[in-house]
Amino acid sequence: MIIHMAEGATPDQTQRVIDRIARDYGLRCETIVSDTTIIGVKGIAAVIDEGRITELPGVERVIRITVKYKDASRAFHHEDTVVNVNGVKIGGENLTIFGGPCAIESEQQALDSARMSKAAGINVLRAFVDKSRTSPYDYRGLELSKGLEIAAAMKADTGLPIVSELIDLRHLDAFLKAGIDIIQVGARSAQYSPLLEELSRVDVPIVFKHGFGNDMNEWLSGAAYIMSGLDREGRSVSHGNRNVILCYRGIKSFEPETRFGADIAMIPLVRMKSHLPLIADPSHSSGDRRLVERVAYGFIAAGAHGIEFDIHSNPAEALCDGKQAVGAEAGRIIANMKAIHSMLAGVGIETGASTPVAAR
Amino acid sequence: MIIHMAEGATPDQTQRVIDRIARDYGLRCETIVSDTTIIGVKGIAAVIDEGRITELPGVERVIRITVKYKDASRAFHHEDTVVNVNGVKIGGENLTIFGGPCAIESEQQALDSARMSKAAGINVLRAFVDKSRTSPYDYRGLELSKGLEIAAAMKADTGLPIVSELIDLRHLDAFLKAGIDIIQVGARSAQYSPLLEELSRVDVPIVFKHGFGNDMNEWLSGAAYIMSGLDREGRSVSHGNRNVILCYRGIKSFEPETRFGADIAMIPLVRMKSHLPLIADPSHSSGDRRLVERVAYGFIAAGAHGIEFDIHSNPAEALCDGKQAVGAEAGRIIANMKAIHSMLAGVGIETGASTPVAAR
Amino acid sequence: MIIHMAEGATPDQTQRVIDRIARDYGLRCETIVSDTTIIGVKGIAAVIDEGRITELPGVERVIRITVKYKDASRAFHHEDTVVNVNGVKIGGENLTIFGGPCAIESEQQALDSARMSKAAGINVLRAFVDKSRTSPYDYRGLELSKGLEIAAAMKADTGLPIVSELIDLRHLDAFLKAGIDIIQVGARSAQYSPLLEELSRVDVPIVFKHGFGNDMNEWLSGAAYIMSGLDREGRSVSHGNRNVILCYRGIKSFEPETRFGADIAMIPLVRMKSHLPLIADPSHSSGDRRLVERVAYGFIAAGAHGIEFDIHSNPAEALCDGKQAVGAEAGRIIANMKAIHSMLAGVGIETGASTPVAAR
Amino acid sequence: MIIHMAEGATPDQTQRVIDRIARDYGLRCETIVSDTTIIGVKGIAAVIDEGRITELPGVERVIRITVKYKDASRAFHHEDTVVNVNGVKIGGENLTIFGGPCAIESEQQALDSARMSKAAGINVLRAFVDKSRTSPYDYRGLELSKGLEIAAAMKADTGLPIVSELIDLRHLDAFLKAGIDIIQVGARSAQYSPLLEELSRVDVPIVFKHGFGNDMNEWLSGAAYIMSGLDREGRSVSHGNRNVILCYRGIKSFEPETRFGADIAMIPLVRMKSHLPLIADPSHSSGDRRLVERVAYGFIAAGAHGIEFDIHSNPAEALCDGKQAVGAEAGRIIANMKAIHSMLAGVGIETGASTPVAAR
Repeated sequence: MIIHMAEGATPDQTQRVIDRIARDYGLRCETIVSDTTIIGVKGIAAVIDEGRITELPGVERVIRITVKYKDASRAFHHEDTVVNVNGVKIGGENLTIFGGPCAIESEQQALDSARMSKAAGINVLRAFVDKSRTSPYDYRGLELSKGLEIAAAMKADTGLPIVSELIDLRHLDAFLKAGIDIIQVGARSAQYSPLLEELSRVDVPIVFKHGFGNDMNEWLSGAAYIMSGLDREGRSVSHGNRNVILCYRGIKSFEPETRFGADIAMIPLVRMKSHLPLIADPSHSSGDRRLVERVAYGFIAAGAHGIEFDIHSNPAEALCDGKQAVGAEAGRIIANMKAIHSMLAGVGIETGASTPVAAR
Repeated sequence: MIIHMAEGATPDQTQRVIDRIARDYGLRCETIVSDTTIIGVKGIAAVIDEGRITELPGVERVIRITVKYKDASRAFHHEDTVVNVNGVKIGGENLTIFGGPCAIESEQQALDSARMSKAAGINVLRAFVDKSRTSPYDYRGLELSKGLEIAAAMKADTGLPIVSELIDLRHLDAFLKAGIDIIQVGARSAQYSPLLEELSRVDVPIVFKHGFGNDMNEWLSGAAYIMSGLDREGRSVSHGNRNVILCYRGIKSFEPETRFGADIAMIPLVRMKSHLPLIADPSHSSGDRRLVERVAYGFIAAGAHGIEFDIHSNPAEALCDGKQAVGAEAGRIIANMKAIHSMLAGVGIETGASTPVAAR
Repeated sequence: MIIHMAEGATPDQTQRVIDRIARDYGLRCETIVSDTTIIGVKGIAAVIDEGRITELPGVERVIRITVKYKDASRAFHHEDTVVNVNGVKIGGENLTIFGGPCAIESEQQALDSARMSKAAGINVLRAFVDKSRTSPYDYRGLELSKGLEIAAAMKADTGLPIVSELIDLRHLDAFLKAGIDIIQVGARSAQYSPLLEELSRVDVPIVFKHGFGNDMNEWLSGAAYIMSGLDREGRSVSHGNRNVILCYRGIKSFEPETRFGADIAMIPLVRMKSHLPLIADPSHSSGDRRLVERVAYGFIAAGAHGIEFDIHSNPAEALCDGKQAVGAEAGRIIANMKAIHSMLAGVGIETGASTPVAAR
Repeated sequence: MIIHMAEGATPDQTQRVIDRIARDYGLRCETIVSDTTIIGVKGIAAVIDEGRITELPGVERVIRITVKYKDASRAFHHEDTVVNVNGVKIGGENLTIFGGPCAIESEQQALDSARMSKAAGINVLRAFVDKSRTSPYDYRGLELSKGLEIAAAMKADTGLPIVSELIDLRHLDAFLKAGIDIIQVGARSAQYSPLLEELSRVDVPIVFKHGFGNDMNEWLSGAAYIMSGLDREGRSVSHGNRNVILCYRGIKSFEPETRFGADIAMIPLVRMKSHLPLIADPSHSSGDRRLVERVAYGFIAAGAHGIEFDIHSNPAEALCDGKQAVGAEAGRIIANMKAIHSMLAGVGIETGASTPVAAR
């Protein structure tokens, strides 16, 4: 951590910053004095709450060197993490396809879509019971126990592991009892700390999306929330949940013609900064089935570990986000993604360190 | 609602859209046929889930005319709503100042800050027990029951109504029992629907912030969530909570030199579009006490019903966001806001209809 | 074009809008009357200046159906445009690689980089004489005649067509005389209309970037400026320059960790909306050579017709943007891009109409 | 300037950075070595082109301490600059109102609008001959000599100084000969360096807007371009043009309901960072006359030195941006702005240094 003191800051103010860091965090500092003063903190500054330093008199700016999302950072865990779900591997050199209907609407629609998705070649099946929506007038899913029952039927019918979004933290036990294999955290819950804290106490793998107003640092800090197992007083109350799979879905931008701005550079960047598996969601990022196929190819070519996308047996009758679901073309899309992934297997990913991961 | 059919859409596809709207919503349509076809839906289309129309074959774009956030919209409720909290009025022609420490850190700091805030002239006191933070390593507040006890002491000591942010929905009863007068929903919870649904079942006034990735439509739709009292199946399960106070706090922008982009045009725009009281938060939007004063004046001059800002008895020792808190200068700032508000009392606010509200 | 009249707009106001459109543009209208009135304009509304309609009393919103960037739109020119430069084809089913140093710094550096770029397999060589910079203190290029001389030497030495950015419109003749084969318009000039008007009067192919604050509509409208050959009074003063190659380079976003947000969905979207060749610039969008390779693969997999990227014989000594230039690895990157492009040759691109282009 | 070396950077790489800074800029460095190495550059680093440092092997990040826009920075010129135009003072403790029609459309409309603007109380009259537009089909203004003739008539008729936007740099002499008192640089030209260089060679005051994709640093760097008088080789070729008036007009944001996001915090921030006069444009930022009045009050209360806004004698017949022009209400708006400005005269502006400017 570097602290840049304002022009005109007094030596006393500088000393107070140094003393505060020693007192609260046990870390030593050095300074470079020119027109203004630069303080460098020695050692791991991940735990420093920069807000508490910024507020001190004379401080102009606090610049973080050590990333704050320590548990999610490749700097502290160099090798790729691989999450294993009933034999399906996510991360590392694996390509994993998550697919299925945006939401469970009825048993028939769910099973039809599940079978179509399995036939297309997916590895993990979407079985979404709850839907987080912007407006109270939009479809929010079937009654919970009915939804979970259909989810279990989808799993039994296909033999595939299932992923389902948990919105209400009070439903966690019901989800686990129903046999949900992977819990997804959606954009609107991505910074809801009570939910993240609940998920840090279980071991079930988490697909963790970022909010559409979140930057990379906030996203990886949310992952660290789930992984660190700290309570509100900062005590370790569990070993944390290490099985986090990141899912990129784009952010708000000023371009009105695309639903979200899915910055392709985020794929190699997040792989460089984090050891966690990284998938991407071309359906929710683009919001238009005419774009989904090419966006999916782009994500894979850029280094994503997989894709999660909407597949619906009858998109025109979908109760939720049918505009973005693909139908029978899913098989062809998955085959092309596999071909791109294979072809680029030897390329590796830049880790910022001397040798790229997985390139050998 | 207007539905624009794609070039080359067939008459059958157009008819299917018209039939679907008749079947699902009981509304009639008319068309204008030129190179492409335009369908106009007659009547109140607030309840139409446009996703279900967009997905139909041949549909190019669905354009909403009737706003979706019906309960929060001035189109359906022309007069300004005034929320009354123990005699303190918020909205209409009133100017209301919310202030106090960013977070309760200790009894001494809380009471000192509360007294300083009261002396400065605030109307509602911040008594924040929980803090929603981006990183698990940042300060998240005292243990809950201790925090609520201090909040109650702040209320008793000053005689002012208190506002406190509710993050964990399981704490709602404890908040109400502790005498919290106004519950605040923060940026990171603003689209967490289980929390909004809980708050729709009580009558306590809500200060409702938007997420920093939310646009106006999402913000007012969140307010409608609280106000409408619908459950997930869309049934009215309560009369809803009509005591919603909007709080603007700026959104993410590409400008790195300000913490959030607080678009000044949002103040008159939201007042035009909604009948709800609108306050603004210059502390969290700007993040820098050197900017807070002038930003606060800007908000009031632009038509806000009030301000919520951080006042700390000793900003340099604050555990949370001390950089943005003002100290002894709060009194002067409040006096100037009152003077601006009085001076512009006769100006009124544009409502988009023939006569401005409150201008007479 | 659809005109949505405000609530409370009078029949006279509606009639005035209809009359104005008839008088100024000779187009007929129909209306749908419900709670509010919808006016639909029949026929091609590309030439309507919506600002002149929006301002009429009673108008709430003007919604454009026919795109405004007519000459650049696929709706008016269904087949892909292929630009031919000395036998190098750009667009359609071709993959074209533009590469070379960010700027010409010296004859030696320019020739070394040119040879390295040729050996790597590029099709068009960057020979950039002028640099548009944000700060007056940054490197802006060699003296013009010296720079153009070196550019000509790069062309002679490699036998490749060369592309060079024209910033000062007064240098156009000098560029053409020096044998520049393709003129590039950069982000900072992308909405400078006098430059676009000059370029509409020549036939030399143009690589047209968008500004980092521009959306798709503004970008394609800029292309239409060059293609349409209209003067300021709206008269056709030339046949326009049809040889426009679009180059995507990302926009400003709130993410601080990437230089620009390069929305991958823009690649298939712009190909769907426009018939013009579309390349992308992974060097300037990501700004970091560690990301360039994967971003380039993403763009090609998403359907770009090619890439323009910085190749420098000695990145660490570059006077301009050396951080983003690749060196000897350029050959491998180009080979992989070709393999991705070949593999996806049969996929085609969605055009929004019944059959995708180039898929057969 | 601080240079943060990457983890694993070698001592040789660190030394090379230090040597490069000594060789190219004559500045000395000190280091702090911990897990990584921090290099601090001693002395004024405004002239360092950070791109040339960033590219050196082992460099992780370059952090600028001294601002780059030196001539525009308050750090190098503490007192407010006041620009004097024929006795009208802009900046410091003065409030200056720029107003008039968005564009000159005819002699009658121009003179009517000019007289209405004068009667309303403006200090500087808009006499806009050229219009920079996004689409080639939009109104771009009358023929130049006719437009300038009318501009001169507006000046003669009202006796007010006139401001006019210069788009085509080849028209500069014609503008000066026609008696234009202040030249405006618009959003689409704000980073077009050949224009900025031309304007650095004259003394006529410049109203300098930022592009809608520009951040504060780019904006003030553009101002420094005009002020510094450097040519492309970095040589001082003139004393530069010190008469720059900044004009804030908002940036692109993801909010679709306002035309641009006009961040109110930018007003006190830019006043803190720069000594130049700062006005703001509520018409072009909000794009809606129903918002202009309150946005204007917000800008003045936040500390702007004035406003530039569109006043039209007959907004409904305007050929350009009539939706945003105010009519007869201009007089009331100006009177209220003056009252707000007077009332806050004693408040001063935070300069970041020990004593605020103009507060005394």
